[in-house]
Amino acid sequence: MPISFDVTARDAGTAARTGTITTEHGPIPTPAFLPVGTAATVKGVWPDQLREMGYGCVLSNTYHLYLRPGHERIRKLGGLHRFMGWDRALLTDSGGYQVFSLGSLRKVADEAVTFRSHIDGSLHELSPEKAVAVQEALGSDIRMVLDECVEYPAGRREVEESVRRTAGWARRSVAASSREEGGLFGIVQGGMFPDLRKRSAGEVCSIDFPGYAIGGVSVGEGTELQREVVDLTAPLLPAERPRYLMGVGTPADILFAVSRGIDMFDCVLPTRNARNGMLFTSAGPLVIKQARFAEDPLPPDENCGCPTCRSFSRAYLRHLYMQREILSSMLLTVHNLHFYATWMERIRQAIRVGNFGEFMKESLGSAFD
Amino acid sequence: MPISFDVTARDAGTAARTGTITTEHGPIPTPAFLPVGTAATVKGVWPDQLREMGYGCVLSNTYHLYLRPGHERIRKLGGLHRFMGWDRALLTDSGGYQVFSLGSLRKVADEAVTFRSHIDGSLHELSPEKAVAVQEALGSDIRMVLDECVEYPAGRREVEESVRRTAGWARRSVAASSREEGGLFGIVQGGMFPDLRKRSAGEVCSIDFPGYAIGGVSVGEGTELQREVVDLTAPLLPAERPRYLMGVGTPADILFAVSRGIDMFDCVLPTRNARNGMLFTSAGPLVIKQARFAEDPLPPDENCGCPTCRSFSRAYLRHLYMQREILSSMLLTVHNLHFYATWMERIRQAIRVGNFGEFMKESLGSAFD
Repeated sequence: MPISFDVTARDAGTAARTGTITTEHGPIPTPAFLPVGTAATVKGVWPDQLREMGYGCVLSNTYHLYLRPGHERIRKLGGLHRFMGWDRALLTDSGGYQVFSLGSLRKVADEAVTFRSHIDGSLHELSPEKAVAVQEALGSDIRMVLDECVEYPAGRREVEESVRRTAGWARRSVAASSREEGGLFGIVQGGMFPDLRKRSAGEVCSIDFPGYAIGGVSVGEGTELQREVVDLTAPLLPAERPRYLMGVGTPADILFAVSRGIDMFDCVLPTRNARNGMLFTSAGPLVIKQARFAEDPLPPDENCGCPTCRSFSRAYLRHLYMQREILSSMLLTVHNLHFYATWMERIRQAIRVGNFGEFMKESLGSAFD
Repeated sequence: MPISFDVTARDAGTAARTGTITTEHGPIPTPAFLPVGTAATVKGVWPDQLREMGYGCVLSNTYHLYLRPGHERIRKLGGLHRFMGWDRALLTDSGGYQVFSLGSLRKVADEAVTFRSHIDGSLHELSPEKAVAVQEALGSDIRMVLDECVEYPAGRREVEESVRRTAGWARRSVAASSREEGGLFGIVQGGMFPDLRKRSAGEVCSIDFPGYAIGGVSVGEGTELQREVVDLTAPLLPAERPRYLMGVGTPADILFAVSRGIDMFDCVLPTRNARNGMLFTSAGPLVIKQARFAEDPLPPDENCGCPTCRSFSRAYLRHLYMQREILSSMLLTVHNLHFYATWMERIRQAIRVGNFGEFMKESLGSAFD
């Protein structure tokens, strides 16, 4: 079945809204945060634990799965859901972001991007059609069109070219789609140029996608520029479709974007920071390796009810981190993902009861800002 | 409360028996296998998962905890149970085995072993009294006396010296004990010399310990020699006390030792092998990185009901292992520990219904041997 989207509540003072994306793998309550499961695993957690935390959708990276273990192999094994033991929704990116990050290892043309694998240097081609085919083989619920993501900072001419190419690729992606289950999302580019964002939004939104993403942010542009782009672009995306801000972000970034009507987010922050010993807490970030935690019997966050905070002290977590124990990544990842899950639930609740503006004001003045 | 031991069933044809070690942190049904939690963590699993698998006792290494994070620190934080979030029984070794493994970094005298930390080269001293004090600070339920474990192969004179020293240290350990909770176990040495094993058993068992261990095995002596030592030594240990074979072993090693009346085991095999991609299965060992598993949709063991086998294919586990994903160690460790837990339960059940001999014969002719 194709995905559908229903708005369930609208905030009074901002563009924030709650909604439900319905997929054949269950509902995704929005605004939603998607944990990143690069190589068909959210590093350090069992799928059961993601389920218990309430996550309805996980993102996985097409580039990585295409190279290893290969999308055809995953298709043979019954698709990505079965492969990774995850029965809720899956979103896959197009692979474009990773390919464009390869720098000198890739070459862009209208027809396709040619690139060399970062693993063995082998030559590959990624076209809009191929990106769709690979994702359809994986069987993800939400698939993303191939877009051209330019580096930051980029000159106007380069961004114009990317906007033109992105629109052409969007049309080809739709034409190449054959899978009725789930849905393919369009992506708006345009760098940091307001008129090019408008142009890209106009072109991409003229195609009827079941959802639209803002791409090309979270590429080093900084909070202020990012917020300008979101502020400008979000209202240009159809209100009756989910809006997805790719690769964002911090709790505060999410809060701001929700106020502008964004419904979906993904980011490596909670999981990557966990592996690096950084915890998100209600009192701000906590760097667990600090010597002051060596004999601290408190949980990471006294206001947190996650399995890590229920059972373990900062002293123990510091010990595990210093010893490079596997359990360190496990416990910290569960905490951070629980923090994000709770954060999104608080956001949804604030919208439901109509005081999101106040919630945002209070939060942005606090440790989250 | 001090630990106690009750034999609950005896096999008819062998010396195998079931029993219960009662501790203030709950019962340990025997024959028992203890997962190894070196640095206050069984690598790759949550304490909850060990509980769900039915483990009643975990081993942790005094040497490692003494160096990092320090036993006094753990005492201040409420003891090892609270530190590592494990509310069932804990056994700590004396630290001797690790210290003796340091080779040229240590010097043995009757008074104490002097050694340099493998981490920073700092100088430390381990005496029988110190080993007791450190373990009492940790608050473990079962503590082990400091013994002198000789390398294999060792000459007669060296082993004689170790037997003499081990007995003296056993007496000093008892004298140094001040904690009434739990209990301190004696250890029999004697290398591969039958008469020295007898001498050591005689000396150590003349002291009233709540349990006795066979030390100095699983040091490279091979299956045959190990079985000879167990065969000879087990009957020399008091029948009314739990008998513990340290550092053993494979499923078949355990089976043999149980038939000779051994009640307790610990070994890194299930956990270490898991991290190296080796799975214990009812059809024998399975090396997950093998290319033939790349598209294998079957679970690691079709006869296994563990959380890993219930949800994941060999193909997925191979993918995770090849990508060095954290989840690989997590899933394989749970499987292997589940295998060992099930193995011990089958052993106990066979003893209870009185057909352990038959169970052993069938098993030793199979993939386990």
